[in-house]
Amino acid sequence: MSDIGSLDALVQALRRLPGVGVKSAQRIAFHLLQHDRAGARELSQALAMAAQQVQHCQRCHTFTESAVCATCLDERRDVSRLCVVETPADQAAMERTGAFSGLYFVLMGRLSPLDGVGPRDIGVQQLLERAGDGVVQEVILATSFTAEGEATAHALAEALKRRGVQVTRLARGVPVGSELEYVDLGTIAHALADRR
Amino acid sequence: MSDIGSLDALVQALRRLPGVGVKSAQRIAFHLLQHDRAGARELSQALAMAAQQVQHCQRCHTFTESAVCATCLDERRDVSRLCVVETPADQAAMERTGAFSGLYFVLMGRLSPLDGVGPRDIGVQQLLERAGDGVVQEVILATSFTAEGEATAHALAEALKRRGVQVTRLARGVPVGSELEYVDLGTIAHALADRR
Ligand SMILES: [Zn+2]
Ligand SMILES: [Zn+2]
Repeated sequence: MSDIGSLDALVQALRRLPGVGVKSAQRIAFHLLQHDRAGARELSQALAMAAQQVQHCQRCHTFTESAVCATCLDERRDVSRLCVVETPADQAAMERTGAFSGLYFVLMGRLSPLDGVGPRDIGVQQLLERAGDGVVQEVILATSFTAEGEATAHALAEALKRRGVQVTRLARGVPVGSELEYVDLGTIAHALADRR
Repeated sequence: MSDIGSLDALVQALRRLPGVGVKSAQRIAFHLLQHDRAGARELSQALAMAAQQVQHCQRCHTFTESAVCATCLDERRDVSRLCVVETPADQAAMERTGAFSGLYFVLMGRLSPLDGVGPRDIGVQQLLERAGDGVVQEVILATSFTAEGEATAHALAEALKRRGVQVTRLARGVPVGSELEYVDLGTIAHALADRR
């Protein structure tokens, strides 16, 4: 873009963001430097802080700033049911239905061999240990009803059943091919009631 | 998104970027924290560095890390011709034609009353002083051939002519309605030769 080292470095760093090409990166860099330096500094600090503070919950694998997240520490939850979701956004969608009072395990992804996402990345070993702790009575698989979400659910169900854990899956009331996060609440609640 | 302060702050900061909505901001934050913390730290540092280092060239108003940019310091350039462009990307497009050896004035925008961009924001006073220094013989207006670019060229031409400066405009060989940055080099070169 220029003979300006720090500007070039900024454009390169922005290009690492998902969905940001070289033109977008230049446009964003230009906007920040020309119109919103306060925004640039705020983002700089937010990135450094989040990269330092955010870790995985030891119980449910979601993002948290403590060793164990607030949901896992909530003593009013039903500890006998464990709902497996792909992302914190999916967990939030499930929470908004008000139809589930158990706990969660957040994969933070789904199995995707082509993208190099394997069992270790989604915390499968951690889930198996958690589900086999003698307290959990039922694991509800609420991964997305996409090809990768279904494959993930299938692999998890096999592994869990081998350990004698009762496994259910959200009913197919959830439209096939959709991301859980974008489904309307009534459909999710219905699918939860009809789990099989 | 969560009860995680630093993650929420990161999503909020990302939403300030142009073209990034709440869903995109969550997706980018998730990606950085789950898959690319090194990228998050790199971007954090690049933002802080650029916000600190990048300033406007005292001669041509473009971004630079020095008081005067490398182009303005280049003694091989024809100091009698001054080409006015909207952005560094437009200047780069002009340079790639190899058809212009003069100097530049980079507005870093264009007049846009609805967006609150006025003469002060695009350095009009600085341009008038520069063009009236007795060295500049011709100002070539190479703003975009969009409604706002034409309005900007018109306003600049009026002000420059009042001060007795010779003003030309890129020929209309440049397709109307297009951004200069995306025009093919031959068209720009031809428009430069036919300036009126
Ligand atoms: Zn947790
Ligand atoms: Zn300059």
